[in-house]
Amino acid sequence: MKVLIIGGVAGGATTAARLRRIQEDAEIVIFERGGYISYANCGLPYYIGDVIQDRDRLFVQTPESFRENLNIDVRIRSEVTSIDPESKHISVKNLETGEEYRESYDKLVLSPGAEPVKPPIPGIQSEGIFTLRSVPETDAIKTFVEEHNPRKAVIVGAGFIGLEMAENLHEKGLYVTIVEMAQQVMNVVDYEMAAQVHQHLKTKDVEFYLQDGVSNFSRQKGADGQERIIITLQSGRTIETDMVILSIGVRPESRLARDCGIETGETGGIKVNSHLETSEKDIYAVGDAIEFINPITKQPTITYLAGPANKQGRICADNIVFGNQKEYRGSISTAIAKVFDITVASTGASEKTLNKHRIPYHSIITHGSSHAGYYPNAMPVTIKTLFSKDEGRVLGAQIIGYEGVDKRIDMIAAVIRQEGSVQDLMELEHAYAPPYSSAKDPVNIAGFVAENILTGRSRHIHWNEVAAGCNPDEMQLVDVRTPEEYQLGSIDGAVNIPVYEVRSRLGELDRNKTIIVFCGVGLRAYQAERILRQNGFEDVFNLSGGYKTYEYAAQ
Amino acid sequence: MKVLIIGGVAGGATTAARLRRIQEDAEIVIFERGGYISYANCGLPYYIGDVIQDRDRLFVQTPESFRENLNIDVRIRSEVTSIDPESKHISVKNLETGEEYRESYDKLVLSPGAEPVKPPIPGIQSEGIFTLRSVPETDAIKTFVEEHNPRKAVIVGAGFIGLEMAENLHEKGLYVTIVEMAQQVMNVVDYEMAAQVHQHLKTKDVEFYLQDGVSNFSRQKGADGQERIIITLQSGRTIETDMVILSIGVRPESRLARDCGIETGETGGIKVNSHLETSEKDIYAVGDAIEFINPITKQPTITYLAGPANKQGRICADNIVFGNQKEYRGSISTAIAKVFDITVASTGASEKTLNKHRIPYHSIITHGSSHAGYYPNAMPVTIKTLFSKDEGRVLGAQIIGYEGVDKRIDMIAAVIRQEGSVQDLMELEHAYAPPYSSAKDPVNIAGFVAENILTGRSRHIHWNEVAAGCNPDEMQLVDVRTPEEYQLGSIDGAVNIPVYEVRSRLGELDRNKTIIVFCGVGLRAYQAERILRQNGFEDVFNLSGGYKTYEYAAQ
Ligand SMILES: Cc1cc2nc3c(=O)[nH]c(=O)nc-3n(C[C@H](O)[C@H](O)[C@H](O)COP(=O)(O)OP(=O)(O)OC[C@H]3O[C@@H](n4cnc5c(N)ncnc54)[C@H](O)[C@@H]3O)c2cc1C
Ligand SMILES: Cc1cc2nc3c(=O)[nH]c(=O)nc-3n(C[C@H](O)[C@H](O)[C@H](O)COP(=O)(O)OP(=O)(O)OC[C@H]3O[C@@H](n4cnc5c(N)ncnc54)[C@H](O)[C@@H]3O)c2cc1C
Ligand SMILES: CC(C)(COP(=O)(O)OP(=O)(O)OC[C@H]1O[C@@H](n2cnc3c(N)ncnc32)[C@H](O)[C@@H]1OP(=O)(O)O)[C@@H](O)C(=O)NCCC(=O)NCCS
Ligand SMILES: CC(C)(COP(=O)(O)OP(=O)(O)OC[C@H]1O[C@@H](n2cnc3c(N)ncnc32)[C@H](O)[C@@H]1OP(=O)(O)O)[C@@H](O)C(=O)NCCC(=O)NCCS
Repeated sequence: MKVLIIGGVAGGATTAARLRRIQEDAEIVIFERGGYISYANCGLPYYIGDVIQDRDRLFVQTPESFRENLNIDVRIRSEVTSIDPESKHISVKNLETGEEYRESYDKLVLSPGAEPVKPPIPGIQSEGIFTLRSVPETDAIKTFVEEHNPRKAVIVGAGFIGLEMAENLHEKGLYVTIVEMAQQVMNVVDYEMAAQVHQHLKTKDVEFYLQDGVSNFSRQKGADGQERIIITLQSGRTIETDMVILSIGVRPESRLARDCGIETGETGGIKVNSHLETSEKDIYAVGDAIEFINPITKQPTITYLAGPANKQGRICADNIVFGNQKEYRGSISTAIAKVFDITVASTGASEKTLNKHRIPYHSIITHGSSHAGYYPNAMPVTIKTLFSKDEGRVLGAQIIGYEGVDKRIDMIAAVIRQEGSVQDLMELEHAYAPPYSSAKDPVNIAGFVAENILTGRSRHIHWNEVAAGCNPDEMQLVDVRTPEEYQLGSIDGAVNIPVYEVRSRLGELDRNKTIIVFCGVGLRAYQAERILRQNGFEDVFNLSGGYKTYEYAAQ
Repeated sequence: MKVLIIGGVAGGATTAARLRRIQEDAEIVIFERGGYISYANCGLPYYIGDVIQDRDRLFVQTPESFRENLNIDVRIRSEVTSIDPESKHISVKNLETGEEYRESYDKLVLSPGAEPVKPPIPGIQSEGIFTLRSVPETDAIKTFVEEHNPRKAVIVGAGFIGLEMAENLHEKGLYVTIVEMAQQVMNVVDYEMAAQVHQHLKTKDVEFYLQDGVSNFSRQKGADGQERIIITLQSGRTIETDMVILSIGVRPESRLARDCGIETGETGGIKVNSHLETSEKDIYAVGDAIEFINPITKQPTITYLAGPANKQGRICADNIVFGNQKEYRGSISTAIAKVFDITVASTGASEKTLNKHRIPYHSIITHGSSHAGYYPNAMPVTIKTLFSKDEGRVLGAQIIGYEGVDKRIDMIAAVIRQEGSVQDLMELEHAYAPPYSSAKDPVNIAGFVAENILTGRSRHIHWNEVAAGCNPDEMQLVDVRTPEEYQLGSIDGAVNIPVYEVRSRLGELDRNKTIIVFCGVGLRAYQAERILRQNGFEDVFNLSGGYKTYEYAAQ
């Protein structure tokens, strides 16, 4: 069997390696347009930031090691220019010699990845403006920083990679400004979660402009005679900078496939069935370039993540050798990034996505601790949990904190992956000793709170509904924290009845109004809510995530 | 409704708190024999070790706060001395006044916990010999250490709490010796995993004697005129020490229940049904004292863990108020401990337990990295995975490492909890960025390796089978690491054929012999195994966990 693979990094290299292990005598050829295979894309920002110091560490395998160790024929600087599914041939261009040739296949695997979006903004080709996807681009950025000693950098686009670059350039001593079209950074999480990131960026002296885009780049000599980049934003604001990283987003590298008659979908990705086969027989596709059905929204989706690419590679290899036995069940897009001292993670669908697809959901925010509060150095962890209104199926989660974020997102991802419900979150039997968690992990607590919503024992109201304004004739805001906490700042119009006085001060509340109780994080307000509900107050809501979330989001 | 609760700590306090939230007008009374309720048992070792410095932090709630905040009547120093299920009354002894009285109930909850085992060893009552379960015992140890300034401590029994105490006393400057009857510390993990802990304890200068027990304690004046404890072991060895912590184990505090006609099971625990109801109507039980059916072994089990006690408390409260609607599905005993710089964790059943109950299983050991190897400070993580031979259902796992152990055990626990298989381990969609994991998390890798076993693509042999000796006429040991690694030490009788030479040196191997390949951790040996199997070698085995596990375990 002769298998050709287009693209030699995450999806391609993994497919090849697994193929070799299960089919010792297959002929396997990898075609890679660039000069490198099997490198750590995800490490590139950290190499630029000198966190990873040794460039060689970025290369997990090389063409030589693949040949020697796995008996795989790797052809770098070789671009596949067309595919002929009829005759089962591809055309390849040797980018060094310019020579073109054809190669036949029994099975073909496409893992061409994604390409950075570079909109036709005037001046976008200027010197000092970079995208970051490949090793040469990385080298270019690193060389620029070392040779030009820039003092300022602008990051356009505040996704995960943009923020990683913000951190790494900041750590190298640059003054970093972020420009983002949306009203928030990190679009995969929802606004009130991103608001915590905004706050954190401020403490790091990273400047950011939201809801603003670049209308034009130009180069100009400054007062000191040095040429700089001038960015004019759509708002009219101008920013002077020494360098720019464009990380506006990526799109699937699906042109080759489409041009050769392989079906692509509405997202632009290459359509695959559950066996990762494309519309053409014997042609498979994996990685950033594919479109699959999202298991939560049931909509066509692309996911630009290394974990799924690697896992798909292994499934694809198995299906090629053993004959389409394995199903790919889609990705739930679990993602994570370190943003300076905090970690931001998400899994499943966000509230934005659920709204977009009109999927009904409940949403809750809970704040907890990375481990037992009585053990030193416990750090706050905020969890947003989204779940279905009927059976409480977990639809998504977002977590932000200083420690233990990765483990909680993984726990929830495990539940979502198995189509579990908030019941499963409650029952998760995590490992508990004081340095690691609490007897009830914050994920269990999220489950409890969700169950209380599902059973009607608690009702949440969200920060934006409260921030939109409460008519005092109809609504009563009750801050159930201590008088000291209340003094330090509360929501306009709120009265203060500490939770433990609620029982004795029922008379101060109006049974005919909607009562919104809140505390710091939601726990005491829930207790107050329970007392009120059981004392005949019908219309009581708990402010989800408490004053903490409100303060972050409403400011 | 009047609910009485016996025991005011993990299970009892949680039941009470939830009861109040769902039934504002219930009359709730907690009876606690000791002087404290709602304290952090799990923090006690760390308070002794000064990691937790403020004693008040151990108390999550107090009798006063429970009264004021939750309107719960807490009676401390009140021992329940009998239960009359017929008349629905209990008898209580006020331990301060000696007064006895009866109290009626509609529902009764037992959460009496467990008591430390104190075998009738001569001299066990001597001064300086302690157990650690309650606050007064903690105070006694702490006072002893502060007043007597002991230089040496002996820990008898090397379970999780014993090792936590070893660490905490070591950190306070004591020279610590551990005495343990079993051939290993931390009996919940299997021997070759514990062997890593043994190694770590050695680096910390903690002395330990395994397979040895105490036959007698005595106090004697030393050469310096100071009285010390002399421990005589069953082996005849004697140890001189200033203090002893007995942590031989605990047993359920079920005597009261049994004496009053409530059924207890073969483990000694109070029998409960899936609603956490005992054999007597309207009497529920939770926590360390209950016996439930283990979801994996299907055998009666007790679990001495705070997480399950807390979760049971909530279920029990709901069943009391809403009428036995909630099922308790048993605990899979996920446990964790920090042991100096490493973390040791387990979930589900161990190999020992599976053997005991004659449950067929496969067992694999894989070594991975806490996060991407190319990102700084990646630390080794060892995972032992146990799964069923038929469908690959995950039965248990054990993990040891320096970082990220908690999150991996939680991921696997989530899969076990949902009756998942190794397929689910492979598919887990964890969060990956370089500081947190790899594109294939070590848990995914464990899933892949397990799948290879289930599909017959790989076969593992275990360290003990190899250590038992290989007959060179029938078996050939092949070390597929580099010559340099081989030079530094290998298994007796092994020949060295580096993995990447295997293809060209097939002729050096005997097709009629069983071939055992091994490398550092199992990955290269697996590659070699695949090459051999596909080149007509039928009888090939990979040494599970590689030379690393072998070296730990066989020495
Ligand atoms: C800076 C950066 C940071 C990232 N961080 C993370 C992270 O922290 N976590 C995470 O999960 N993911 C991260 N990712 C995403 C992750 O790297 C990708 O999801 C993954 O590499 C996708 O694998 P792939 O095989 O589809 O594509 P790639 O790994 O991009 O490989 C595609 C290859 O195909 C080649 N190719 C394309 N067309 C042709 C052709 N016609 N002929 C020959 N060769 C061709 C390309 O040159 C390219 O080398 C990051 C990506 C980048 C760029
Ligand atoms: C030192 C130590 C460290 C631990 N570390 C961990 C850890 O890291 N992780 C973990 O998961 N678990 C740990 N545990 C175990 C955990 O604390 C227990 O599993 C949990 O407390 C059990 O809850 P319970 O309600 O069943 O019993 P307990 O919390 O022990 O409460 C039982 C209470 O009942 C009272 N009582 C008993 N009989 C009567 C009676 N007749 N009348 C009145 N009162 C009575 C007792 O005085 C006691 O206060 C640790 C335990 C100890 C002692
Ligand atoms: C380097 C690369 C080719 C490796 O692919 P791979 O060989 O499938 O992956 P690994 O080296 O992790 O090895 C995994 C294999 O070893 C096996 N294995 C791992 N540890 C083992 C152990 N201790 N014992 C036995 N087998 C083991 C696994 O079962 C798996 O084999 P299988 O798929 O046949 O079941 C590929 O991952 C790659 O190119 N990575 C870099 C690019 C990339 O992913 N970038 C994005 C992230 S930065
Ligand atoms: C202190 C103690 C009484 C607390 O019990 P508890 O009130 O059930 O637990 P918590 O304080 O964590 O509160 C959990 C409750 O608040 C709710 N809650 C928590 N955070 C919330 C939030 N942000 N918004 C809304 N509700 C929230 C939960 O839903 C849960 O309520 P529910 O059970 O009615 O659903 C009990 O855990 C205890 O005694 N602990 C110490 C003893 C012990 O466990 N020892 C062993 C471990 S060291």
